[in-house]
Amino acid sequence: MPSNTDTFASAAGADSRLRQRNYRLAEDLFEQFRTMSFDGVGISRETYGAGETAAMEVVEQLARRSGFETRWDAARNLIVRMAGRDPSLPVVASGSHLDSVPQGGNYDGAAGVIASWLALLSAQERGPPLRTIELYVLRGEESAWYGGPCYFGSRALFGKLTDADFSVQHRSSGRTLAHHMIDCNVDLPVLKARTPLIDPKRIACWLELHIEQGPVLIAKERPVGIVTGIRGNVRHRRVVCTGEAAHSGAVPRWLRHDAVMATAELLVRLDEHWRVLLEWGEDLVLTAGIIETNSREHSISRVPGEVSFALEYRSQDVKTLKSFRTLLSSECSQVGKKRGVNFELGTGALTEPARMSEGVNALLQATASALKIPFELLPSGAGHDSAVFANASVPAAMIFVRNDKGSHNPYEAMDMADFHAGSELLTQAIWAAANRAEGFAL
Amino acid sequence: MPSNTDTFASAAGADSRLRQRNYRLAEDLFEQFRTMSFDGVGISRETYGAGETAAMEVVEQLARRSGFETRWDAARNLIVRMAGRDPSLPVVASGSHLDSVPQGGNYDGAAGVIASWLALLSAQERGPPLRTIELYVLRGEESAWYGGPCYFGSRALFGKLTDADFSVQHRSSGRTLAHHMIDCNVDLPVLKARTPLIDPKRIACWLELHIEQGPVLIAKERPVGIVTGIRGNVRHRRVVCTGEAAHSGAVPRWLRHDAVMATAELLVRLDEHWRVLLEWGEDLVLTAGIIETNSREHSISRVPGEVSFALEYRSQDVKTLKSFRTLLSSECSQVGKKRGVNFELGTGALTEPARMSEGVNALLQATASALKIPFELLPSGAGHDSAVFANASVPAAMIFVRNDKGSHNPYEAMDMADFHAGSELLTQAIWAAANRAEGFAL
Repeated sequence: MPSNTDTFASAAGADSRLRQRNYRLAEDLFEQFRTMSFDGVGISRETYGAGETAAMEVVEQLARRSGFETRWDAARNLIVRMAGRDPSLPVVASGSHLDSVPQGGNYDGAAGVIASWLALLSAQERGPPLRTIELYVLRGEESAWYGGPCYFGSRALFGKLTDADFSVQHRSSGRTLAHHMIDCNVDLPVLKARTPLIDPKRIACWLELHIEQGPVLIAKERPVGIVTGIRGNVRHRRVVCTGEAAHSGAVPRWLRHDAVMATAELLVRLDEHWRVLLEWGEDLVLTAGIIETNSREHSISRVPGEVSFALEYRSQDVKTLKSFRTLLSSECSQVGKKRGVNFELGTGALTEPARMSEGVNALLQATASALKIPFELLPSGAGHDSAVFANASVPAAMIFVRNDKGSHNPYEAMDMADFHAGSELLTQAIWAAANRAEGFAL
Repeated sequence: MPSNTDTFASAAGADSRLRQRNYRLAEDLFEQFRTMSFDGVGISRETYGAGETAAMEVVEQLARRSGFETRWDAARNLIVRMAGRDPSLPVVASGSHLDSVPQGGNYDGAAGVIASWLALLSAQERGPPLRTIELYVLRGEESAWYGGPCYFGSRALFGKLTDADFSVQHRSSGRTLAHHMIDCNVDLPVLKARTPLIDPKRIACWLELHIEQGPVLIAKERPVGIVTGIRGNVRHRRVVCTGEAAHSGAVPRWLRHDAVMATAELLVRLDEHWRVLLEWGEDLVLTAGIIETNSREHSISRVPGEVSFALEYRSQDVKTLKSFRTLLSSECSQVGKKRGVNFELGTGALTEPARMSEGVNALLQATASALKIPFELLPSGAGHDSAVFANASVPAAMIFVRNDKGSHNPYEAMDMADFHAGSELLTQAIWAAANRAEGFAL
C-alpha cells in the first residue's frame, strides 16, 4: 500500500511529541480492543452485547482518569464531554460505534472512536474551546447480529426506534433486541416512547471518522477521503423472471421463453445504462449479488423456465434512485416482451440517501489543505451512523481512512500513518468548529 | 391442436377397414401399457426393470399369437421377425424403446414400438416382402434411471457398452446396472466382451417413429416430421466465473470484478452469435440451464465474486459444435479481460451428432408426398436409439409425430389421428424398403 502521508506529516505543524503520544495511545487502544474481542478468527463485539459494553467501559475509564465528564444515555450510548466556554451554544459532536460484525476487523467503528478520543485529548491540552465538545461512543451500528435493521444506538438518540426494531431476533440466541438491551441496562420504556435523547438543534455539527470499506483511496493513492454523501439504496430482494421450461434440444430459438437469457439481457442493458449514467455525472452503483435458477426443475438439458435474482442500486441522490426504478421497470417490460418472459420485481425497499453538510465539508477540505493532507472526495456506499444524524437535520460530515481488503472481515488493513492523517484532520476540524461562533449550513 | 390429417386420410388409399382395425389395436395397446405402468402420477417403466419387461412380453405374446417368430437377444431386447423371400438380403429393421422416465408419459418410446408392430401386421397381410422385416423392441433408452448414460439396449446391439456403463448406479436402488441386467436375464459376459449382437451390414435400414419432444410440429401445424439429423452436443456441466467479491456500496464500477455481470455479458454475446449463426444457415441450439451464485458468500449487498453455470450447445453438424467451442473460448477471454474475471470452462463433453441416411429420408419424403401427409423437415434435438444405429453405419431415419407439452412428463399430448398419419407413413416406407432390391445410401 503506497503512503502519501510523509509530506503532510512533516508539514502538519503538529507538535512532534504530541504526535508520538497519540500514535502510542491509539496503538495501545486498538491493541486492547483487539485482545479483549478476539474470537479465534476475527473481532466479535456484539451489538448490545457484553464485548461492546466492555470496550465502551475502557473508553469510559480512560476518560474519567483524564478528568472528563462521562454519562450513559437511555440507550446506553456513552458520552464523554469537554465543557466549552459558552454552554448556551450547540455542541460539536463526534464519534463512531464500537460493535463489530461476527469475525470482523478491529478498525470498523473503533477507528472513529479512537480518533475522536484523540481529538478530545488535544482539545483538553489547548484549553477550553468556545463550544462544548462531545464524544459519542455509539452502540449497535452493525446489521449482522439482528439480520438487517441497524443503527440502533444513533437512531435511539433521535427517538427513531420502532416496535419492529425491538422485536428483531438475535442471529444465534434467538432472543429479541429488547431482551439484549435490557441485559445492557437500557431504559427500554424511554426508547419505546420514542423520546429523543438529544435535541438535534443542540448539535452544531457531527463528525465521524471511519475506515473506507471500498478500494477507492487505495486506487487513488490518497490516505484520507472526505465523504460527499451517504448513498441510499433500493433493494429488490428477489426478482423472479418466469419463462417456460422446455427440452433444450427439441425447442428451437424462436419458440423459447428462456428465463436465463432474458435475465442476462436485462442485466447487460442495465449495466450499459449504468455506464452511461456515470458518464452523465450521476452517482450510481448497481449490483445483482444473487442469481439462481429454480433447483427443483433446472437441468443442463432444460431451457430454464425460472430464475430469481437480487437487485440493488445505490445513489447519493434520491432522484437518481427513483429514475432508475422507472428505467428498470421499462427495461423489464421491453425484455419481457421481446423474449416472452415476465419479470416480477416486487416492492423494492427504499433507504433514503443522506446529504453531508456543505458547511462542515468545506471546513474539512480547508483543514486538510492547510495540513497538506492529500484527500479524495468520494461518496460512502455503505451506511453509517452519520446518515442518521444527517437525516435528523444535524450538519454532518465524515472522514474516510484508506483501508485495504474492505471491512467486515479479519483482514482489514489500515496503515497507522493513514489513521493519524485522518485523526489529525478530525482533531483540527473539531477544534476549528468548536471555536467558531456561527453554525453550519446543512 | 389443429389436425391436417383429414386430407391425407381420405387420399391415403389405405383400406378403410384395415385403418379402423389399426386404430383399435393401437388404442388397446396404449391403454394396456398405460394401465400396467401407471405409478399414480404418470408412467414408470424402469430401464432394465420389471415394468419394461412386462410391456415387452405383451408385444411378444401378441406377435406369437399372430404367428411371428420372436427372440430375445443377449441384452434382452425383443426381436419380432417376418421372414422375407430372400434371406440373403440385409433386413429392414424398425422399432423403438419401451422404458420411460419416472413419472413420464405413455407415448415416448411406446408409440414407435406400436407403429412398427402395425407395420409388421400390415406386411403380414400383404404377403412376404423381398427382404425380412424385423421389429426391435429396445430396452434402456432413457438416461433418468442411471443418472446420465443411456441407449443401453441399442448400444449392446453393436457391442458398445463399456465397464463404466455396467457400474452406473440406479437412482433409488443404488445397485449397479449390471445387477439390474442380471435380474432381467441379460447374458452379461457376452455384453461385457463387447460382442456385437448384430452385424450392421445385415441391416439394410433402420426406421424409428417417435413423438416430437419439442413444439415445432405444433407451431408449424404439421402432423408429422421427417428428421434430418440427430443433434450431438457439447456439455460444460459447470463453468465457473471467478471475479472478486466486494461491498456493493463501497466499490465503484471501475474497480469491480463482478462475476454475474460478466456472465450476463458472456451469455448475451453467445446468444447474439447464435442468432447470427442461425441466419447463416447453421444448425445450433444454445442453453444455459443452470446458473447459481456461490451461496456460501453471496448476498444482496455484495458484488458477486463467483457464479457457476451449465452450458450446452447442440448441432447436427460436428463442425459447428467444434467451431462454437472455439468461439466460446474466445468470448470467455474477451469478457474476462474486459471485466477482470476468469472463466473456467472445464472439459466440455462431446456427444457426436448422427446423420440420417439420405436414401432412407428420400424414401420417407416420397412416401409422405404420395400419401399426401403434410410433413416438416426438422432436426431431432433429443438423442434417440436411431443415433446409435446411424453411428454404427446403419442407414437410419426417423419419423416424428406431433405432440404437445413435450415428453418426459405425464402430460404428453399426441393426437391419435397424428399417430396414424405417422404410423401409415412408417408402414408404407417399411413395405417399400423391404421390396427394394438395392440398399440405401448412408
